[in-house]
Amino acid sequence: MGTKMIIDCDTGIDDAQAIIMAVTHDNIDVKAVTCVNGNASIDNVCRNTLRVLHTCQKSQVPVYKGCITSLTGEVLMAQHVHGGDGLGDVKHFPEIDMTNLQKEHASLAIIRLTNQYPGEITMVAMGPLTNLAVAIRIDPDVSSRIKRLFIMGGNIEGKGNTSPAAEFNFRVDPEAACIVLNEFRCPITIIPWEACLSAGFTWDWVEQKWINTDTPKGNFIRDITATIRNFYKNDMRRSLYTSCDAVAMAVAIDYSVATDTQDVYATVELAGTYTKGQMICDWRKKLGKPPNVCVVLKYHHEKVQDLLKGMLM
Amino acid sequence: MGTKMIIDCDTGIDDAQAIIMAVTHDNIDVKAVTCVNGNASIDNVCRNTLRVLHTCQKSQVPVYKGCITSLTGEVLMAQHVHGGDGLGDVKHFPEIDMTNLQKEHASLAIIRLTNQYPGEITMVAMGPLTNLAVAIRIDPDVSSRIKRLFIMGGNIEGKGNTSPAAEFNFRVDPEAACIVLNEFRCPITIIPWEACLSAGFTWDWVEQKWINTDTPKGNFIRDITATIRNFYKNDMRRSLYTSCDAVAMAVAIDYSVATDTQDVYATVELAGTYTKGQMICDWRKKLGKPPNVCVVLKYHHEKVQDLLKGMLM
Amino acid sequence: MGTKMIIDCDTGIDDAQAIIMAVTHDNIDVKAVTCVNGNASIDNVCRNTLRVLHTCQKSQVPVYKGCITSLTGEVLMAQHVHGGDGLGDVKHFPEIDMTNLQKEHASLAIIRLTNQYPGEITMVAMGPLTNLAVAIRIDPDVSSRIKRLFIMGGNIEGKGNTSPAAEFNFRVDPEAACIVLNEFRCPITIIPWEACLSAGFTWDWVEQKWINTDTPKGNFIRDITATIRNFYKNDMRRSLYTSCDAVAMAVAIDYSVATDTQDVYATVELAGTYTKGQMICDWRKKLGKPPNVCVVLKYHHEKVQDLLKGMLM
Amino acid sequence: MGTKMIIDCDTGIDDAQAIIMAVTHDNIDVKAVTCVNGNASIDNVCRNTLRVLHTCQKSQVPVYKGCITSLTGEVLMAQHVHGGDGLGDVKHFPEIDMTNLQKEHASLAIIRLTNQYPGEITMVAMGPLTNLAVAIRIDPDVSSRIKRLFIMGGNIEGKGNTSPAAEFNFRVDPEAACIVLNEFRCPITIIPWEACLSAGFTWDWVEQKWINTDTPKGNFIRDITATIRNFYKNDMRRSLYTSCDAVAMAVAIDYSVATDTQDVYATVELAGTYTKGQMICDWRKKLGKPPNVCVVLKYHHEKVQDLLKGMLM
Ligand SMILES: [Ca+2]
Ligand SMILES: [Ca+2]
Ligand SMILES: [Ca+2]
Ligand SMILES: [Ca+2]
Repeated sequence: MGTKMIIDCDTGIDDAQAIIMAVTHDNIDVKAVTCVNGNASIDNVCRNTLRVLHTCQKSQVPVYKGCITSLTGEVLMAQHVHGGDGLGDVKHFPEIDMTNLQKEHASLAIIRLTNQYPGEITMVAMGPLTNLAVAIRIDPDVSSRIKRLFIMGGNIEGKGNTSPAAEFNFRVDPEAACIVLNEFRCPITIIPWEACLSAGFTWDWVEQKWINTDTPKGNFIRDITATIRNFYKNDMRRSLYTSCDAVAMAVAIDYSVATDTQDVYATVELAGTYTKGQMICDWRKKLGKPPNVCVVLKYHHEKVQDLLKGMLM
Repeated sequence: MGTKMIIDCDTGIDDAQAIIMAVTHDNIDVKAVTCVNGNASIDNVCRNTLRVLHTCQKSQVPVYKGCITSLTGEVLMAQHVHGGDGLGDVKHFPEIDMTNLQKEHASLAIIRLTNQYPGEITMVAMGPLTNLAVAIRIDPDVSSRIKRLFIMGGNIEGKGNTSPAAEFNFRVDPEAACIVLNEFRCPITIIPWEACLSAGFTWDWVEQKWINTDTPKGNFIRDITATIRNFYKNDMRRSLYTSCDAVAMAVAIDYSVATDTQDVYATVELAGTYTKGQMICDWRKKLGKPPNVCVVLKYHHEKVQDLLKGMLM
Repeated sequence: MGTKMIIDCDTGIDDAQAIIMAVTHDNIDVKAVTCVNGNASIDNVCRNTLRVLHTCQKSQVPVYKGCITSLTGEVLMAQHVHGGDGLGDVKHFPEIDMTNLQKEHASLAIIRLTNQYPGEITMVAMGPLTNLAVAIRIDPDVSSRIKRLFIMGGNIEGKGNTSPAAEFNFRVDPEAACIVLNEFRCPITIIPWEACLSAGFTWDWVEQKWINTDTPKGNFIRDITATIRNFYKNDMRRSLYTSCDAVAMAVAIDYSVATDTQDVYATVELAGTYTKGQMICDWRKKLGKPPNVCVVLKYHHEKVQDLLKGMLM
Repeated sequence: MGTKMIIDCDTGIDDAQAIIMAVTHDNIDVKAVTCVNGNASIDNVCRNTLRVLHTCQKSQVPVYKGCITSLTGEVLMAQHVHGGDGLGDVKHFPEIDMTNLQKEHASLAIIRLTNQYPGEITMVAMGPLTNLAVAIRIDPDVSSRIKRLFIMGGNIEGKGNTSPAAEFNFRVDPEAACIVLNEFRCPITIIPWEACLSAGFTWDWVEQKWINTDTPKGNFIRDITATIRNFYKNDMRRSLYTSCDAVAMAVAIDYSVATDTQDVYATVELAGTYTKGQMICDWRKKLGKPPNVCVVLKYHHEKVQDLLKGMLM
């Protein structure tokens, strides 16, 4: 059945693409999707996740509700590039049956599943890291039972998409990100924001080769990305489309997608006025600590394109 | 059976006295003692707690192991006024059977017990508030099922026992204290450090009327306080003996022990160099928030003496 | 001619009383009044100061304009308990000739005068300490030429009048206060906010014995305090009237006014969310530094009353 | 006589090169060199500056001693890449006559000279910005009389040479840097650290074309750079030699040296654990403020080489 995986996310348009990529991939066995506050309120995140799985005819994948705030209780709202519901506010989507949502808390599900499959679970985190931070407070050994943790989040050049210096997932829960980077004992690969922006997909490819795939999944992707494509292409005049969570998932599925990586000691600024949530990479070894993460600097955008295209078939 | 109670503590000499006071009191039904990192490492805290209950012949009270660090992962060591083991380093104590320790995590036990007895549980917290903060991340409704929460911790005059401006329990886990004060919906009574110091017990009373009580519990108190009594009386030349956790428990058992109280909005400083962990009481309503706690300013030291004396019989 | 004095202030109703106390006292020789941003904008502070001296027929005392912001550039506005102009917004006051204002900057005047009278100048600071902090950056030896520095400012119980935990003068310029406490080499006596509130003057005394003094100075005090007396007595229902700057000046004129003092290492919190500007007194010697200030804890309110009464004759 | 210039610096090996470049250039009329604490103690900085001018036979350029600490009093020591004396610890240098040092403070000299030549002075700052910050506290209008301010300092990718995220000049005095960026009203051009590293000079050029220039100035440059060249080339195995202050001076002398620039709102992080002193560029206009600086992103390294070569003749 291939790689056992837990996806921790705040579904989100990007998360939706990453989830589809994973659950439709032959070599990936998604054991759970755990939801966390982030791009949308936790209830919308859970609904969006169930909807994505329903679209993929994968409703048998269990979905768990997790933390409704950051670790310290702060709630930072996304700026609705993902729509008010986090998934593009598509009007004609049918109602989703929420009774499919599991009763167990996301953090407890992560503890249980890593006990059930010790050393076998690949974890892909694409939202604020609150669920993981709470899990290690309940079970200090949880991280040693994870095979590898992939994180979409953080930044490496002090350039932010949420504040002037911080990336969204880390800014929403800086303390959780700091805990995961400093306390998790499994190998960690970080796909930071600037790496995601280092390449992308042409609008021609997006429009002619991707979203016009006439399948239920293709139509779904076309619908949920309608507003954001218009915003990026016409309002912001970006030359390329990118999907950060999809890049991270692609790296998790096929490590050769990462074409340039570097090991480094990384932590998170918790105190700054402008820099709270900024990832700090100690490139010059000023702090005298051994590397704790592997940072992806560049990725193979054609391999990601192939995965994005293939998953809609 | 009287008041149902959960004691959350970092046992500690003061905690030991408070636990004895509760479990020997006719009107108190202790449903659980939940342990947290603080005065000693979590393993010593658990061992100390089991020892106290064994001494009281109350080993049927279940003991739960909780968080091993503060919420953000920092571990601040106590300065060993409680001894290296947290309980006065008494040499002749017998081994304690640790198999009695429950397998469930302290935070999960709090969630379960408040579900079992909604609105009935009085919670007395006498250590860092990590277990409570983690509980509300797992179950956002947990606090609404607690009848009343008593907290020994914080300060009201910016005078610290751990840093120049912060009290130990709040300084060890400022974020957890901030979460509990700002997110818990049950009535909260705080017994701050300066209130505990506002009165005390003469050395004559301690030595002639209290620790010479010739019972197993009396001998136990005499042994665990031997070093600290000498330190306070002879090295620091304090005129009075005090036990902060015992005062807090006395207030929880008999509210008339609190002779002066004030409702106020209180929160916790998370950012200061010297003031991290300081409790901030907005006496002059600069922040425009409604009161969230009741602060005890003075207590009836004779009533506490009577409880301390009675519990050793 | 008595004690040579420089008064550094942000005139202010309280400052006005302190200036009158000094310039009318037989044993005090005021060499300069240096103005700083605080209770009012620097221009109002200068105008108010010239007005006070004019009322006392002491226009020969030179007045210097100092810093227009805090050291770091922040400007925190007073909440207009001193009136929009800082001096009770009295309508019938005549225009003041501003050409009397000196051209030299306040900080440079302090440097020059302490060079002219090395070891002879008593400095009384009753506003934010910006002018003093700038002076020591221009001349690192300036403080060693000051005989003694009296400061009205800071707090000792974490109780604030400006934020929940900070006193106005220290909150307006925390970095300057920190510099003065840590870098000034002359003896420093601090009259903190809580000490000023520890005693006061009855409304009977204020109304029957003080402000009804029928002299130009008496009428001036009656006029500038009209609004604030009404506010304190009727709106806030305070039982006593106090004037912090007047207490500080009284201590500077007659040290026996301070009835209880304590030497301690004190510094200023620069980083807190609620505690920025709070004075930190290391009563328990947690920081291992020698005392750098003498803090006044209590004062002799009758001696201050006598000075306040006598100065209006 | 060409462009009137004040050089504010913490001489340093890089500063020495920049000073030589300016005082030997036909179109530059250096009115003053103002010294500040930074690469070396202020006394060494003054001595080094006098030595550089003596070497250039330009001892008539007046040198002023400025601030001996950062604005808030912190003193951060350089890691002696510039040698203990800041200038490579060359043993055979003759004694320098320190009586040539002016008595006026650097900040006051800046105020006086900009009054003497309003709108005519180009200011080049190559050290911590303390002198400029103190100048604006004494004279709030000083910046409006400066023609243009060039600053070597700050970073644009969150990469530090002093802490993990901050550049030396800004890290040594973050508050001063913040004041200059936010309060100075003249046009500001910033040459940040990453821009200086974006190009450089081959070791071949340095050794065969530059330091072997057999003139007093050439020998001087050869001597003071001996240790640092060895360190960069052999220990750190850098492929190129760079001199940040020389790049900044080159841009100030010939603006066409800057080949890529961008206007942006920039400020300085004052609060972070790792990011204190990091320059914050609001590339995505999250703060809604208009641009206050022009940042140099790339420079024409051959033009800098020509200036470096020409100045030794
Ligand atoms: Ca996401
Ligand atoms: Ca305790
Ligand atoms: Ca004042
Ligand atoms: Ca320099």
